Amino acid sequence: MTTSQLVQEIKKKKSFLCIGLDVDLNKIPEHLLKEEDPIFEFNKAIVDATHHLCVAYKPNTAFYEAYGLKGWSALEKTINYINKNYPELFTIADAKRGDIGNTSTMYAKAFFEDLAFDSVTVAPYMGKDSVEPFLTFKDKHTILLALTSNQGAFDFQTKNAEGKELYKQVLETSKTWNNAQNLMYVVGATKAEFLADIRQIIPDSFLLVPGVGAQGGNLQDVCKYGMNDSVGLLINSSRGIIYASKETDFAKAAASKASELQVEMAQILG
Amino acid sequence: MTTSQLVQEIKKKKSFLCIGLDVDLNKIPEHLLKEEDPIFEFNKAIVDATHHLCVAYKPNTAFYEAYGLKGWSALEKTINYINKNYPELFTIADAKRGDIGNTSTMYAKAFFEDLAFDSVTVAPYMGKDSVEPFLTFKDKHTILLALTSNQGAFDFQTKNAEGKELYKQVLETSKTWNNAQNLMYVVGATKAEFLADIRQIIPDSFLLVPGVGAQGGNLQDVCKYGMNDSVGLLINSSRGIIYASKETDFAKAAASKASELQVEMAQILG
Repeated sequence: MTTSQLVQEIKKKKSFLCIGLDVDLNKIPEHLLKEEDPIFEFNKAIVDATHHLCVAYKPNTAFYEAYGLKGWSALEKTINYINKNYPELFTIADAKRGDIGNTSTMYAKAFFEDLAFDSVTVAPYMGKDSVEPFLTFKDKHTILLALTSNQGAFDFQTKNAEGKELYKQVLETSKTWNNAQNLMYVVGATKAEFLADIRQIIPDSFLLVPGVGAQGGNLQDVCKYGMNDSVGLLINSSRGIIYASKETDFAKAAASKASELQVEMAQILG
Repeated sequence: MTTSQLVQEIKKKKSFLCIGLDVDLNKIPEHLLKEEDPIFEFNKAIVDATHHLCVAYKPNTAFYEAYGLKGWSALEKTINYINKNYPELFTIADAKRGDIGNTSTMYAKAFFEDLAFDSVTVAPYMGKDSVEPFLTFKDKHTILLALTSNQGAFDFQTKNAEGKELYKQVLETSKTWNNAQNLMYVVGATKAEFLADIRQIIPDSFLLVPGVGAQGGNLQDVCKYGMNDSVGLLINSSRGIIYASKETDFAKAAASKASELQVEMAQILG
């Protein structure tokens, strides 16, 4: 998917909501556990109930890998289901990968070709040659970790590294990489006040913003400091939406929570 | 596996060799492609031919994920085969994971419980709460990226961050985390001269050292600067060993290459 297709979808739906599909078998409704593939059945129901309210889905790979082969199979079925039934949705493999060049190429193949996601999250620690292999894929997007939503972000990301915080070094340096136009960035909603500075460095890039909801981030603040002329934001909510109910009405309850955010977003978009 | 069991095995075999199982279907012998699971058959043959020469195996997860479900299945069969037949071998999931706390717990379950690896590589960018969930597992080891073997290591890892290079900040800070005794570190062989400084900060920790062989690192230099009283090194070679031949003699050729390194290591151990 191209960035302009994503922007078009945002304007059409008046939503820049991304729903995180972080499926934990201990948290989903009990009646689904009888199904052959509870994870996929859960995702399918959530997607069918919410696709008109959001523009992106973001399965976090950890939650699938934890269930081994069955988990990976559920991930594959989930992305195939979304791509087949809702091809207008932007898909994010939240995988936080990154390795030496020939290895990053294999990760890129895994998520862009084998699983056909539109984008993947990547960690910047190993530098240019660990990220550029992802950037060579046409109409695919690499979402680089810049300033994450957790407390540990203050351990290294905000350290002053030769005149500016490390996450700003990451933003500035990554702009010089080959095919940098395929970069987006992760910036946590819990650090909304940093967004004004971040927009100075990358005014045009899309930001994936986790941390609204369960982690305590505020939507209004994120939009105030982070929105640009093309919206430029994907606000993710995972637990706050998908675990709204543990009963048979779980999909409806998720849609209701998603709708609350979508209404708020429509107001902001004006 | 405990660290002292690993040290015992190193002394018994006079080897601190780790063999990287980075299986690329374009590089393995053609006759294996007829097998139902070529990746597993390749690994099985390599492991059977080399297990007496090395102390660890390190599958890189990217090479398995790139083949989707079949790849993940081959990874599962490989770790199960090693654990069943050669339980004395230390196993490393080279996965370079790391995410917010509840997600890192899921990754830890994936690699320590579902796949039963002894260790996993983890990226430090997201800080303490992204790494500590891995450290809570008893007799499991978390191998934190410090200074990697690639050129991109100089983009951020060697930046001066408040008085010292970022990778040194990572080493020092990580020593203060809960269950830090379960940490090991990745330090690339291509930067052997940095090892003297690194040993000042973490004299006792095991180091996983990639980059000998295909990437140009030198074994003698690594040992000169990096070895401690308990050896404290796992030297990884992947492509230089497993792709020594593309013919039917590939396993024998791999053993021959592994033996060259083991002989050199035995001499160093004295």
